Amino acid sequence: MGILFFGIAGVTISAIAFAVAAYFNHWIKRLPKGTPQMESIGLMIKRGARTFLKREYKALTWFAAIASVFVCLFMPKPFWVDGANIINNLIVTISYIAGTVFSAFAGIVGIEVATIANVKTAISAKDGISKSFMAGFRGGAVMGMTVVGSALLGCSLLLILIRDSALVQSAILCFSFGASTLALFAKAGGGIYTKAADIAADIVGKVELGLEEDDPRNPAVIADNVGDNVGDVAGMGADLFDSNVAAFAAATVMAIGLNNIKMVEMVLCYTGLGLFASTIGVFFARIGKNKNPSRALNINSYITMALYAILTALASYFFGFDFRFFGATFVGLLVGVVVGLATDYFTNDAKKPVQEVARASQGGPAFTILTGLTYGFKSTVPSLIGIGVSSAVAYFLCAPLGGGDPALSAQYAVFGIAMAAIGMLSIVGMIVSNDAFGPIVDNARGLAEMGGLGKEVVKVTDELDSAGNTVKAITKGFAISASGLTVIALLAAFLEVARNAGIDISGFDVMNPLVFFGMMVGLGIPVLFSAMLIMGVDKNAQHMVHEIHRQFNEIPGLKEGKGTPEYDKCIDISTKGALRELIPAGLMAIVSTLIVGFIGGVMALGGFLVGNIVSGLLFAMFMSNSGGAWDNAKKYIEAGNFGGKGSFAHKSAVIGDMVGDPFKDTAGPSINTQITVVSLVANLTAALFAAFSLAGLFIK
Amino acid sequence: MGILFFGIAGVTISAIAFAVAAYFNHWIKRLPKGTPQMESIGLMIKRGARTFLKREYKALTWFAAIASVFVCLFMPKPFWVDGANIINNLIVTISYIAGTVFSAFAGIVGIEVATIANVKTAISAKDGISKSFMAGFRGGAVMGMTVVGSALLGCSLLLILIRDSALVQSAILCFSFGASTLALFAKAGGGIYTKAADIAADIVGKVELGLEEDDPRNPAVIADNVGDNVGDVAGMGADLFDSNVAAFAAATVMAIGLNNIKMVEMVLCYTGLGLFASTIGVFFARIGKNKNPSRALNINSYITMALYAILTALASYFFGFDFRFFGATFVGLLVGVVVGLATDYFTNDAKKPVQEVARASQGGPAFTILTGLTYGFKSTVPSLIGIGVSSAVAYFLCAPLGGGDPALSAQYAVFGIAMAAIGMLSIVGMIVSNDAFGPIVDNARGLAEMGGLGKEVVKVTDELDSAGNTVKAITKGFAISASGLTVIALLAAFLEVARNAGIDISGFDVMNPLVFFGMMVGLGIPVLFSAMLIMGVDKNAQHMVHEIHRQFNEIPGLKEGKGTPEYDKCIDISTKGALRELIPAGLMAIVSTLIVGFIGGVMALGGFLVGNIVSGLLFAMFMSNSGGAWDNAKKYIEAGNFGGKGSFAHKSAVIGDMVGDPFKDTAGPSINTQITVVSLVANLTAALFAAFSLAGLFIK
Repeated sequence: MGILFFGIAGVTISAIAFAVAAYFNHWIKRLPKGTPQMESIGLMIKRGARTFLKREYKALTWFAAIASVFVCLFMPKPFWVDGANIINNLIVTISYIAGTVFSAFAGIVGIEVATIANVKTAISAKDGISKSFMAGFRGGAVMGMTVVGSALLGCSLLLILIRDSALVQSAILCFSFGASTLALFAKAGGGIYTKAADIAADIVGKVELGLEEDDPRNPAVIADNVGDNVGDVAGMGADLFDSNVAAFAAATVMAIGLNNIKMVEMVLCYTGLGLFASTIGVFFARIGKNKNPSRALNINSYITMALYAILTALASYFFGFDFRFFGATFVGLLVGVVVGLATDYFTNDAKKPVQEVARASQGGPAFTILTGLTYGFKSTVPSLIGIGVSSAVAYFLCAPLGGGDPALSAQYAVFGIAMAAIGMLSIVGMIVSNDAFGPIVDNARGLAEMGGLGKEVVKVTDELDSAGNTVKAITKGFAISASGLTVIALLAAFLEVARNAGIDISGFDVMNPLVFFGMMVGLGIPVLFSAMLIMGVDKNAQHMVHEIHRQFNEIPGLKEGKGTPEYDKCIDISTKGALRELIPAGLMAIVSTLIVGFIGGVMALGGFLVGNIVSGLLFAMFMSNSGGAWDNAKKYIEAGNFGGKGSFAHKSAVIGDMVGDPFKDTAGPSINTQITVVSLVANLTAALFAAFSLAGLFIK
Repeated sequence: MGILFFGIAGVTISAIAFAVAAYFNHWIKRLPKGTPQMESIGLMIKRGARTFLKREYKALTWFAAIASVFVCLFMPKPFWVDGANIINNLIVTISYIAGTVFSAFAGIVGIEVATIANVKTAISAKDGISKSFMAGFRGGAVMGMTVVGSALLGCSLLLILIRDSALVQSAILCFSFGASTLALFAKAGGGIYTKAADIAADIVGKVELGLEEDDPRNPAVIADNVGDNVGDVAGMGADLFDSNVAAFAAATVMAIGLNNIKMVEMVLCYTGLGLFASTIGVFFARIGKNKNPSRALNINSYITMALYAILTALASYFFGFDFRFFGATFVGLLVGVVVGLATDYFTNDAKKPVQEVARASQGGPAFTILTGLTYGFKSTVPSLIGIGVSSAVAYFLCAPLGGGDPALSAQYAVFGIAMAAIGMLSIVGMIVSNDAFGPIVDNARGLAEMGGLGKEVVKVTDELDSAGNTVKAITKGFAISASGLTVIALLAAFLEVARNAGIDISGFDVMNPLVFFGMMVGLGIPVLFSAMLIMGVDKNAQHMVHEIHRQFNEIPGLKEGKGTPEYDKCIDISTKGALRELIPAGLMAIVSTLIVGFIGGVMALGGFLVGNIVSGLLFAMFMSNSGGAWDNAKKYIEAGNFGGKGSFAHKSAVIGDMVGDPFKDTAGPSINTQITVVSLVANLTAALFAAFSLAGLFIK
């Protein structure tokens, strides 16, 4: 069939996804307007989100510009080296820039629609949960379709336009790198923004003054709602865009390395079918007769998965792709389900862990924290085993394709792991849609409360919000595992790149001292990165608490609901603070990769990636799930258990939730992008450090 | 010179250490008696500690008996296999039992002396800090000398008595395994005991009733003091006994594998000189003119290190050991210092991190927790880099001894890492002495308070207690890193054992799917283990809180100091609870090792060890250092900063300390022994799983 066929098919599927997104956008806009008060609050949220995004992208433009210069100088080969071609360097640079632009585009579209859909979801709640659910879900789906459509479009275009196989490897890696750098900063920045606002609003509002969530007297309430959008819509979208492209890049680089065009076609085909299945799933999503929103979201996901499995099986049959790869992809898909179920178990308030955290809260905050942490620790085990088993199964399924040659078998086998990652990320369109549903309905709840739509309506939005939270926890677990598998595939791609650079290695033996050294340093990076982000949230939240105190002291009648809070000031603190904190953490990760490569060369870099992956997985999962458990334990108590709102247990649980906030919404989910960026930087600089490193000078 | 010479030298040095311990014991007993009240409280503590130890050892006897049967059936070869010799199996079984008995002996001696020295230290404080310091330090030194003396004695005897090189490998590993299993349960059990009592005493005493630390009206106060002894004296002693023997075992196994008797001699010589240097250091320890106890403890350690470096250099010169090994040992020693300094930085209240945690406490407990966690996260980085650099340096120093042959060079190189572990553990006699100093002076403080010795005396013991805390944090960091290096050496020994079993592997390549699978599962074990221990503390503390409440409600006049609390009941809860919790966690670690070996064979076991090591190091360091920072932040506030005792910041800091308690005294330091046990189990069962595994059935 040829690459061209599959490339054009990919572009077509992207176009369909964009069309669905456009239709949903149109559909949402036609829903009834909110009350004037809601519209004005909605506008404030939209403006706040736009301002942050504008400033963030401005800062990132500088970063991307500098990075572009580096890419242009060094990629795919330093331009002054024999055999380098400046045209190639320009092509690769354009790919890098395209990666950042496509990702930013998806983020902007997502935010624009989400900040309309929130008002529409709130007002639709007057007509019952079905319509309101559709408004929230379709708002999220615009993001989902745009994210995955852009990713597929970019990858397809690269494969259509660039015909040189070595060049397309570099170009795809650079496209992925562009997406990753943007995601790194978007996720970290958005995460710091949203949690600083959330924690500060809670400390003063809930703890000190006893106000409800989303009380309009709270000066930080708009900043909190803006935060949901920039953190969970734009940030999470950029994150999954990034994982999606990275998995594609890893698989393509390996397929090209095996000189097997058919496998490249398959990667493109499978990725396209993933988006196609998600588009169909999203298009036909309904809440069903029992009116249970979380069930609707889950059933949609399962239908999409089944559809994907059928479509890829058919495609493999018709196009003659080896069914072993289908097996690997299917295993990846299954592990996604396992991880989702495990995450659900540890963060769902109908299950034991969350209830135990709530119960322990009766003994005071220390027990809330300890119990939540221990469940977070435990929650890592099923996912780790899932990832371990799935990559082993994928490996052994695909190794026989090497036909007995050990080196070739190993290459096919690790390609199988990349296909597992592709399988896990296949339904990412659906996942992003589900995920963006969360902040939209969360906002809608706030708007219903602040717009005074009455108890019944707030109850409907509450139900949607709770479904959004559960699904969010699951998609987080999913995102972490997906990027885990992806970076393992990137590690394999790194081997391929290192081989291309003339270094003859078959793997990364931890008994090799350079690998071991790299691994030890690599272990520390996600941990240090998390610490920096949490510290950032901590600092900004404290600033904002001061500001809220100031407003309550200085604005007459604010407490009684007569004065108007200066929402802008709080938005400004979150915006500036997030921008100040996001750069150092991201730079630390990138620069440490370069330092390790410079000192220890390719072997140390390989170890460094291994260290990053393992500690990244551990900390990301433990923090996300502990955070989810605390959040829902608080809600479980608020639902009337163990004394309900205002009880001692509730106070303890609120403290647990505050600790959990930066865990689950800042550090935990940012680690994904951090380890992906590090893996891509290593891939891109492998040739450089193969040619020169300090260890290379002294050893051999 | 011959093994016999060095073996006898080892026995002689052990004898000297025992003599010093006996002299100190005698010296302490001759110090003046305490007041009758102190003597009676001291007796209660002694009885409580004895009871716990007796019951714990009884439970462990069952475990050891069952393990002995397994060892006897399978080690060094299954007794029904061709070439097996039942005599050998018996010898190895006796070695195993000897490991448990020697370790238990050291624990008993340590506890017996520590529970005399506490009273003597308290009463000596009336005569000033110098004498009191000496009482506390010499009490701890009895433990230090006994622990390291027993370890050296056991190792020397094995090398003297068993002349078959393959058999001595198995015997030493089994001796080490015996020590490890005991340490695993002693550390975990002691850790659960001490923290359940500590937290419960604090919750009711400090938080609810506003009592001082060690107030005799608190029913849990004796249990708390008993806990210091069983956790920090017996537990930590068993832990370092274990690391010490494990490092010796790893180095010896590798030296024998290289068929190099001279290297075996060197291992014995270096280990002996470590104890010799520690003995001299301990013997001449004085507090100095400035009366600063922490400085005295640190200076003693530095002097011991310098002495050790000089002695080993001289020995290498006279006995003709290669100076490259001396270099590796020296590097290990230096990293010990680096890790100690890093730990000190993150847990000392004169430094920024602790003060920042204290400052953040003004914003509430959530900030206390978040700030402490982030510093704990950060604290892992210097130690990780230290371990990475030192093992790389040791490796490259020793690789040239292979004379260009790659396989041989790698073997010499990893032997270099084992020597670095030996270097780091060289001054372990001094370390254990310093560490046991902590609980003795902590007890002394309690006795001075409860015995009504007056403010001046309590102040002296307070100063000693504070020094004990700082030093304890450092020795914890040290113990973790030491066992980190040790298990890396054990990983190398595992390679050697696997090779002996006929499996031809050069290392553990993470790109190998079995290694990767093992690694993923291995990552989860220390995390799950920690969760189980923390959960255990949590549960027991809650039981004890109930009991304390009951006593205050039912015993008339208890609050006013008229009634007598039923101390025994609290001691009983801690004892029973710890025994109930310690077995499942330890078994989980051992059984999971067997399952992974059974499924994936030797390669998966290797990966499993790697996963255990890396996640063990990360979590052990982060938990110990966060815990240390919270503890000292609380003390920093109590010293009058940020509002002092009773302020809002203080209340937040107390919650932080409670979270930190099981982190730093239960889970964190138990991980050492957990990863050591797992490594030894893997070493011992390598031959078994090389002969049979599920993966072996299906693959190849």
